[in-house]
Amino acid sequence: MTMTEKARLIAVAKGDQPADLILANGRVVNTFTGEVLSGNVAICGDRIAGVGDYHEAKQTLDFSGKYLSPGFIDGHVHLESSMLDVGQYARAVVSRGTSAIVTDLHEIANVCGMEGMRYVLDCVRKLPIDLFLMAPSCVPATHLETSGASISPEDVRQILRWREAIGLGEVMNFPGVINGDATVLRKIALSQGKIIDGHAPGVRGKDLSAYIAAGIGSDHESIVLEEAREKLQKGMFVMIREGSSEKNLEALLPLVTDNTYKRCFFVIDDRSAYDLLHDGDIDAVVRRAIKLGLEPVRAVQMATINAAEYFRLGGLGAIAPSYFANILALDDLENLSVNTVFYRGRMVAREGKPLFPLPQVDNGAVTGTVNMKPITPKKLIMPATSTELPVIEVVPGQIVTRKRYLKVSTADGQVISDTERDILKLAVAERHHATGNLGLGMVTGFGLKKGALASSVAHDSHNIVAVGTSDEDILAAIQEIERLQGGLTAVAEGQVLASLSLPIAGLLSDEPLEAVVAQLDKLEQKASELGVRLPSPFATLSFLALPVIPELKLTDLGLVDVIEFRLIS
Amino acid sequence: MTMTEKARLIAVAKGDQPADLILANGRVVNTFTGEVLSGNVAICGDRIAGVGDYHEAKQTLDFSGKYLSPGFIDGHVHLESSMLDVGQYARAVVSRGTSAIVTDLHEIANVCGMEGMRYVLDCVRKLPIDLFLMAPSCVPATHLETSGASISPEDVRQILRWREAIGLGEVMNFPGVINGDATVLRKIALSQGKIIDGHAPGVRGKDLSAYIAAGIGSDHESIVLEEAREKLQKGMFVMIREGSSEKNLEALLPLVTDNTYKRCFFVIDDRSAYDLLHDGDIDAVVRRAIKLGLEPVRAVQMATINAAEYFRLGGLGAIAPSYFANILALDDLENLSVNTVFYRGRMVAREGKPLFPLPQVDNGAVTGTVNMKPITPKKLIMPATSTELPVIEVVPGQIVTRKRYLKVSTADGQVISDTERDILKLAVAERHHATGNLGLGMVTGFGLKKGALASSVAHDSHNIVAVGTSDEDILAAIQEIERLQGGLTAVAEGQVLASLSLPIAGLLSDEPLEAVVAQLDKLEQKASELGVRLPSPFATLSFLALPVIPELKLTDLGLVDVIEFRLIS
Repeated sequence: MTMTEKARLIAVAKGDQPADLILANGRVVNTFTGEVLSGNVAICGDRIAGVGDYHEAKQTLDFSGKYLSPGFIDGHVHLESSMLDVGQYARAVVSRGTSAIVTDLHEIANVCGMEGMRYVLDCVRKLPIDLFLMAPSCVPATHLETSGASISPEDVRQILRWREAIGLGEVMNFPGVINGDATVLRKIALSQGKIIDGHAPGVRGKDLSAYIAAGIGSDHESIVLEEAREKLQKGMFVMIREGSSEKNLEALLPLVTDNTYKRCFFVIDDRSAYDLLHDGDIDAVVRRAIKLGLEPVRAVQMATINAAEYFRLGGLGAIAPSYFANILALDDLENLSVNTVFYRGRMVAREGKPLFPLPQVDNGAVTGTVNMKPITPKKLIMPATSTELPVIEVVPGQIVTRKRYLKVSTADGQVISDTERDILKLAVAERHHATGNLGLGMVTGFGLKKGALASSVAHDSHNIVAVGTSDEDILAAIQEIERLQGGLTAVAEGQVLASLSLPIAGLLSDEPLEAVVAQLDKLEQKASELGVRLPSPFATLSFLALPVIPELKLTDLGLVDVIEFRLIS
Repeated sequence: MTMTEKARLIAVAKGDQPADLILANGRVVNTFTGEVLSGNVAICGDRIAGVGDYHEAKQTLDFSGKYLSPGFIDGHVHLESSMLDVGQYARAVVSRGTSAIVTDLHEIANVCGMEGMRYVLDCVRKLPIDLFLMAPSCVPATHLETSGASISPEDVRQILRWREAIGLGEVMNFPGVINGDATVLRKIALSQGKIIDGHAPGVRGKDLSAYIAAGIGSDHESIVLEEAREKLQKGMFVMIREGSSEKNLEALLPLVTDNTYKRCFFVIDDRSAYDLLHDGDIDAVVRRAIKLGLEPVRAVQMATINAAEYFRLGGLGAIAPSYFANILALDDLENLSVNTVFYRGRMVAREGKPLFPLPQVDNGAVTGTVNMKPITPKKLIMPATSTELPVIEVVPGQIVTRKRYLKVSTADGQVISDTERDILKLAVAERHHATGNLGLGMVTGFGLKKGALASSVAHDSHNIVAVGTSDEDILAAIQEIERLQGGLTAVAEGQVLASLSLPIAGLLSDEPLEAVVAQLDKLEQKASELGVRLPSPFATLSFLALPVIPELKLTDLGLVDVIEFRLIS
């Protein structure tokens, strides 16, 4: 803010000059005190001048009967999980009341490196939403996989100078931290004095103390109450995650009490386009929390000021003098229907419809990213070295998996998919550098009876992950993804049944929200016709290659025992 | 922390290496969750590695039956008000459990400018206490007085680069802020993104919104509950002050609820050596808050983590991994008797006794600061222009005064002190630049029946303030202060009855706490013998020259109507 703007803001607050805009007669949610108070909100430029007895303005909008809330803050999200290009993502979430997101962009960074991050930032700068950047700490997530790009300590140092940067993104390499790995400690040291986010699924006791002692301030990976409680007691801020694949709200909500709520807030982590369209974004989490019994104003606090305080986001999270005029008009505080959205004093959505255009940004640097060595059928063969193998067991609704030792079916000395017992072949094909790497393993829980599914969304390295009932269909599915230069597909008997093209980094569509959801619907319907019983099979598939989430995962280099943090030879 | 130190801290936390020190068997106050938990505290160097099942250490101290609390933080204090040199101040407060103070050093800055501030910082760097510096925003406090030095916007810019600096000190020039004064707005603009403290006694409504809109984040001047509540609602952190002259705890404690307590914390502002010796520092405020009904752990939170969060003091305010090992062992949580004090892992006080030496710092730049033009008796004459004059009315226990219009006594065409009706002459003599400025006015509330009192502690410009029953004794008192090169005195019939020499900036003694208190005792006893009925007459006297506290004050330039923020001609 210039000195002139500041002087005008003060004059408007004092009542000496008319406001630019007054939001009149609303019931204002006070996130400082947990009250709902009456008062007109006077806005000057992009800021709030005051709440109270203000009546003179260039424009006055009446919000009688409505509640006014600060814009929501999503404290940890991978917007790439929506599979929407940045502008379409913004149209989806802004109309739901999300005014700010905190993200490390590590999905696109794993594919395109800092060029990918710059593409997203270039888009967001033209959109009515704030993006606060955490420098990605773990690109690649581990040394147990091949990513498209890597982010070194020197890159972290450079990213931390970017204007959106506020800290270091989720330090997923918790074994590295706990064991004093020099590279990850170097990235943490570079971020000293800034926010450093954690990612420590199941880490407890002295290991957790060691992880926190490194300087890590938050965690979003607790799935059981006692784990979250311990993290809180040891000083972490607890992000309560409610995404599409990871739903922790119900389990963790009992953690939220008068004594603890200020150190807890809501995050999305990963949410599908389908859920964004049909359920919502952070608004959906607030709504669900209220349904589960959380006091509505407190739920709003956990979606606004609590995150702003943890991340030190000046001017966000409240409706008060000097705060940005990011304001939601809500029809009520139970169903939390977002009626109107203001961003920096401008109306940017009304009744669910975004009121802003898509940004025009050159995407040349983030397209054409699939670069593969041709896969021969022979590469998909798994020799039957043992009749009992470690098998990845899917846990519905979670991104953690279980490591099971199961008897597998064999034929001709090869391990084969067993549709009867639902033990299917899983493949991860490297797709960035044409190395020809191909990891193979077995998974249970998909229920696929024929055909194959494949995806270039495969956290975090985003190689191509495929599950199938036959090698032929697995191969056909991988080849379809290569042809599309990224996407999702369902095939059977060598025929493509449905696809979604994701030309931007192999992660994002260039089509509107509704079209993406329609194609996903068709894909899931086809998957269902092929026998899949999981609610979001492509989301589940996309996390099977993420070797920082316990217990057993598959990368292009092979099966990873996440607990032991090593490849299973 | 170096990478090597960090790696060792992590190893100790993990249990792979022995700690340097274990505090065993204490009951640990968890300021994150408001609980008291058991666990051994493992310390590595100056940090806490973890709390839990730790047993191997170079040294183990048993604290069975004791509570362990984080060191206390005083979020707003003018340590100069203790009249103790920096080392003696630290010995007094560290043994009471204060591990960190936030101060703008504006008392010594008003006398000696940045040289004075550097002197204090040089001392503190050798002491077991943290000093977080707020750049003084208002030196001089107003244009209505003559100070020894001034701090310009350019000086603020420079101070903000000092390693202790975290923000801008209490912006006392609230009329300037509200009216868009360019100099004060410039200082605020220079501090953007840092902490900016307020000082807005009685400011409410749109004026308060304007003040906050300028970017100011806290206030410590509320004396009534509704004022503090409004400040909280508008987004300020409310510092609840309990000093020697300003006692707001009882009035403001009802503000502290489950919904609000995180945005409230305790501060001292000004506390006398007497109170430090006999009552304590922040520990005394916590003790009193508990006696008034505040839950003990919450009281500790308000003396520790809440301030740390507002000021973003990394590593302070909790006993948890990576936090500094600033730990108090308390005998109990009701009387809050501080048994042992650790600062950065070292024991620095035990059973009220400091265990560290005084720093040796050259004080040449901050002594010999009284520089006066000789005062003739004629200068003390007040011509009787009117029989009814504005009179300063002292409000016992507060630093605010009332402006009363009272009939004054006259003789020979001159206004004179009236001991019967307790309307006495008050003088403020400029003492920095030998200008010969002398302000005169009348005050009621002292009760002095004979003689005069004078002080070179006279907030904030620290000229010489004197109250007396005759011009002769006022003059004698002022001359005694000049002779001492700063101090306090009580005189009668031209004879000095008692004095306290304050050679450092005219503000601080060079003697130990107990000697200062003994001399103050004698001064107050003499004042009492002269008829004074106020509990702390020299403290009261010292605030009568502070033209940022309503309603009526006296400076070397004359009477100041604080509400109208102008000199009364």
